[in-house]
Amino acid sequence: MNEYSEYKCWMQERKAAIPNTIALCLATLCADQDCVFAMDELRSGLSRFAPLAKAAAGKLTFLGTIAHLNAEHGLDLPAQKPEGFVIRVTDVMVIIAGQDKAGLLYGVHRFLMLLAQDKITVGIEAADAPSVPIRMINHWDNCDGTVERGYAGRSLFFDKDRFDYDPQRIIDYARLLSSIGINRLSINNVNVRAAAKLLITEEYLPELAKLAALFRPFNIRLAISINFAAPYLLGELATADPLDPAVAAWWCERTNLIYRYVPDLAGFVVKADSEYEPGPFQYGRGHAEGANMLAAALKPHGGQVWWRCFVYNCTQDWRNTKIDRARAAFDHFKPLDGQFADNVFLQIKHGPYDFQVSEPVSPLFGALSETRCLMEVQITQEYTGHQIDLCFLPWIWTKILHFDTGYGEHSRIEELMGTRIQGLVAVGNVGLDRNWTGHTLAQANLYGFGRLAWNPSLCAAEIAEEWAHLSFGREAAAEIAGILLASYPTYQKYNAPFGVCFMVEPKLHYGPNVEGYEFSRWGTYHRADRQAIGIDRTECGTGYTAQYAPQVAAIFADPALCPEEFLLFFHRVRYDFVMKNGKTLLQNIYDTHFEGCDEVQVFLKRWLALKGSIAESVYESVKARMEKQLENARQWRDVINTYFYRHTGIADQSGRKIYD
Amino acid sequence: MNEYSEYKCWMQERKAAIPNTIALCLATLCADQDCVFAMDELRSGLSRFAPLAKAAAGKLTFLGTIAHLNAEHGLDLPAQKPEGFVIRVTDVMVIIAGQDKAGLLYGVHRFLMLLAQDKITVGIEAADAPSVPIRMINHWDNCDGTVERGYAGRSLFFDKDRFDYDPQRIIDYARLLSSIGINRLSINNVNVRAAAKLLITEEYLPELAKLAALFRPFNIRLAISINFAAPYLLGELATADPLDPAVAAWWCERTNLIYRYVPDLAGFVVKADSEYEPGPFQYGRGHAEGANMLAAALKPHGGQVWWRCFVYNCTQDWRNTKIDRARAAFDHFKPLDGQFADNVFLQIKHGPYDFQVSEPVSPLFGALSETRCLMEVQITQEYTGHQIDLCFLPWIWTKILHFDTGYGEHSRIEELMGTRIQGLVAVGNVGLDRNWTGHTLAQANLYGFGRLAWNPSLCAAEIAEEWAHLSFGREAAAEIAGILLASYPTYQKYNAPFGVCFMVEPKLHYGPNVEGYEFSRWGTYHRADRQAIGIDRTECGTGYTAQYAPQVAAIFADPALCPEEFLLFFHRVRYDFVMKNGKTLLQNIYDTHFEGCDEVQVFLKRWLALKGSIAESVYESVKARMEKQLENARQWRDVINTYFYRHTGIADQSGRKIYD
Repeated sequence: MNEYSEYKCWMQERKAAIPNTIALCLATLCADQDCVFAMDELRSGLSRFAPLAKAAAGKLTFLGTIAHLNAEHGLDLPAQKPEGFVIRVTDVMVIIAGQDKAGLLYGVHRFLMLLAQDKITVGIEAADAPSVPIRMINHWDNCDGTVERGYAGRSLFFDKDRFDYDPQRIIDYARLLSSIGINRLSINNVNVRAAAKLLITEEYLPELAKLAALFRPFNIRLAISINFAAPYLLGELATADPLDPAVAAWWCERTNLIYRYVPDLAGFVVKADSEYEPGPFQYGRGHAEGANMLAAALKPHGGQVWWRCFVYNCTQDWRNTKIDRARAAFDHFKPLDGQFADNVFLQIKHGPYDFQVSEPVSPLFGALSETRCLMEVQITQEYTGHQIDLCFLPWIWTKILHFDTGYGEHSRIEELMGTRIQGLVAVGNVGLDRNWTGHTLAQANLYGFGRLAWNPSLCAAEIAEEWAHLSFGREAAAEIAGILLASYPTYQKYNAPFGVCFMVEPKLHYGPNVEGYEFSRWGTYHRADRQAIGIDRTECGTGYTAQYAPQVAAIFADPALCPEEFLLFFHRVRYDFVMKNGKTLLQNIYDTHFEGCDEVQVFLKRWLALKGSIAESVYESVKARMEKQLENARQWRDVINTYFYRHTGIADQSGRKIYD
Repeated sequence: MNEYSEYKCWMQERKAAIPNTIALCLATLCADQDCVFAMDELRSGLSRFAPLAKAAAGKLTFLGTIAHLNAEHGLDLPAQKPEGFVIRVTDVMVIIAGQDKAGLLYGVHRFLMLLAQDKITVGIEAADAPSVPIRMINHWDNCDGTVERGYAGRSLFFDKDRFDYDPQRIIDYARLLSSIGINRLSINNVNVRAAAKLLITEEYLPELAKLAALFRPFNIRLAISINFAAPYLLGELATADPLDPAVAAWWCERTNLIYRYVPDLAGFVVKADSEYEPGPFQYGRGHAEGANMLAAALKPHGGQVWWRCFVYNCTQDWRNTKIDRARAAFDHFKPLDGQFADNVFLQIKHGPYDFQVSEPVSPLFGALSETRCLMEVQITQEYTGHQIDLCFLPWIWTKILHFDTGYGEHSRIEELMGTRIQGLVAVGNVGLDRNWTGHTLAQANLYGFGRLAWNPSLCAAEIAEEWAHLSFGREAAAEIAGILLASYPTYQKYNAPFGVCFMVEPKLHYGPNVEGYEFSRWGTYHRADRQAIGIDRTECGTGYTAQYAPQVAAIFADPALCPEEFLLFFHRVRYDFVMKNGKTLLQNIYDTHFEGCDEVQVFLKRWLALKGSIAESVYESVKARMEKQLENARQWRDVINTYFYRHTGIADQSGRKIYD
């Protein structure tokens, strides 16, 4: 057992051990009373590692900020970036020092993590700091207690249109998030409806303040999603026009009020003019005008605006082949580059569509040069298996981070982190389920998100191994990490083929429905016929590829160069198109779907072999989900294969069963 | 204005006119105090027809039961069947006489109906009686106030898990139903869940009694849907096994209790072992055992069991082509023929599937020779346009009634009415909407159902003209009846082609989704590929046709003889199959879909031409719905045509636009 799973067990089962003498001794060395939270962490953490505790016995232990320790104890600790830390273990000393109080917290967490991995040895000197200032979780929780796209139980925060939570569970959650470096948290759905509209009123603000107080010791600042039409919807003004001085004044006053209750509120998340949410368009205004008006109200308080770029025509006519939803974010926001206030951050989904299983990186990240932005990903597995199917998301996030936008030097996404890209934000995957995430292994996605937001250069394998080791100990770690690492490619194989999107059960977004969105208003079409499938997004088609830097566009626009996982995203391809392995597109569709399903079978077998080496309850619950995943993979395999067999009349070359 | 629409306006707007002297005079002639409801009807009815009132002035007017009038007034009125009546108008007398009190009520309604059509003349002698004793509406109302498959507002009876209604609205509804001869009404959804399970407890029975009292004067006996597992679900027994004596005793006691509150309860509607509802199967018992157990409890009270035959495998694997859901009702119930108690009625959906737009008549009606049954149809437009699209259902019901089962003489469905088929039952289409049915013209479906349940020999044109005349007066009647009569064939044309079923948006059941149910667990597949579509249900296929009488089976089993509207229901047909008009199946699909959409455009034009000749509010609301219907028809046309174009690559012969 180890740090991360200790957290889990400890927080859930309340079996806090009695602090040992080492930990108590450490506590006395900490002069900064504000660091009490960190001491608590360390104390309860160390108590679990008797060998280390023994090893540390008799050593001088220093815990504080770098400035404090250098000044008061004559140490020579090097300065770090904000929120950074130094860990130093020598023959005679153990030092955990933060650049600031947040850094000390993260240093303690890192110390515990290293400890759990037996990496704390004499001579170690570790220093680290986050790459970006904003590492945020967006909850899509509704005040009625439901969670939009939530697969881990009901809301942590709300029930029956009121704040309603167990404070200890919130503290546990805050500790969990702080252990992976999360420092921002928006608590309500970006679709701000019903009672959520009232979160900015005095009816709810005292409760918001109480919640913020629970997160504050863990260096987590709360944010809220607001409804752009609030001045109108709350019945206070006849308009929400951002250029109306009365509206701007209303938001200033309202923001002042909010900050009286929550002085360190991080800011507002805004979904405007998106999927029927109100926004500046309805007043003939632009998004910069809308965002800057809110930014001006937040500026005096140090607050920020996260303005989502998920703006597209959601009442499209499928007959119209000229409109391409993939173009929308770029078309809306590129022309506004440089027009946003400095406390506005454009929150851009990682791909041009909507958290699909296989879609390219949004061209906006490369194209915006004068605008701060955040990359938004989804930890909750909306399209990636509902926390029933195993799908280790850091695998795809690292690929996204390695994507080279092609604009200038150091143009890979991870290299933009900390400059144009000021943070990573993710839709959370935690609810009231006892194991936080429904599928226990889905915890690895939350963990991995935090680690990558801190350090985008980490590779997926490191993250998988780290989490598996921390959660299940050294013995089972390699096997579980192996399953995790294989899971995304497997999910991709049995899902929609080669970058086709939205072949999924409408609304639900679990399980296959090949034409489920084919004639809808959502702009999500693959236009499969008896000969070909896919959308031509080159300059001969919708022109979407031209939104990328020329050398990137050249790759995507050429079927021979285009990464095959995006082939049908960028191109309309005949089923007899020969792919890199010499087989046709059709045969590759068949092959990947048979393989994907077979691989899930293998996961299940590998998991069954772990019986006895992990806690029985975890073993059983993961097993049950894997069995459901196998059913799902089988349905995907057969529906997809049958669909294409019916369209082509061409059988599988290997003679495997395709239903007719 | 006239009787039917008078009801509407009168009941809704409470503009009851002051009874005129003629009506008052009539009232004094009625000796039977129990007939007060009929007098009310007549009084308020006559008050609206001043010309007739004048004409009748001075005549002797008799109103009562036939026996009473013959005995007390020396008349020679011929005896009628139960619920029948005689209307006689001579130079000196107006007589409305019922065989029983119900007959008098229906006689008065008929008199008013004839009056409104100017058909009450000197010399008229009209006698009539219903063909079947059971003429029932099933409400699918939930206690929370929602209505399953309801398109006319919330429940008339329930809200927030309580009885909750305006008594006057209930009386209005009862009068409306009695005017078309309905005499049974089940008030709650056949899926008996949540609070509905408690309707048979003393918590709800006093309220049920009050509701029954409102319907009773209108010759309407209430029924309730019960949950077969009630003894278990109410926590009173550990089982609901119908052969367990404790279960039978429980139902006897419970039924006795219910009848203490509602002495004339008509009986129980039961959906058992159907779409996850509990039933005898889970105890290894048969449906006869289940139904007869309930029947025994009801028998002493004159109550009946309506046992639904909608029993099929709803967790089918689409890969399995051996299972044919269309076979299910026959396969389950034919072997039980003759095993049911005499107060059990098998409630059989008109077709083997589920209220689809085009499906053949269920073979069970012909096949059962020793079992009483009811035919179930759907007035609420689940698959027929949600009371947005106009779809005049008597058109299809009369075709169903004309269907010849081929078993013995007088084997047409309408000829079985009153013998093996003891009634018609329909899922209702009325809710709290001010105009009762959402789409005002959908009233014609409720009207037509009642008329056909009374007299299955009526033709659709008579019904359409009657209703249109009664509702809109002579001027607009022909035009509106013309639109009504054309509406079903038009809907059929733009819907799923030639007897294919379930090409519809899953769950919602409005709008096209060609493969929406294709890979589902509901047993609803068309298996279209690049060459053919449809299911072979002949003896070479699933063998479903063998459930019909041999000469009927021979017709259905031969693609050349099979009615083309059922072609793809019974056969798997290549797109190049040549149909009766010399065109291919594919071209006929294109043609019907272009035509269907064009015809909706014509309906709308015809409706627009009625502006000024009907009430503005009705004109506008129907116009708005027709505009939506046109959108829907356009979506159907293009989705269906594109689907088949993509599968075949063959263009429309007439060069009309098919999107690719």
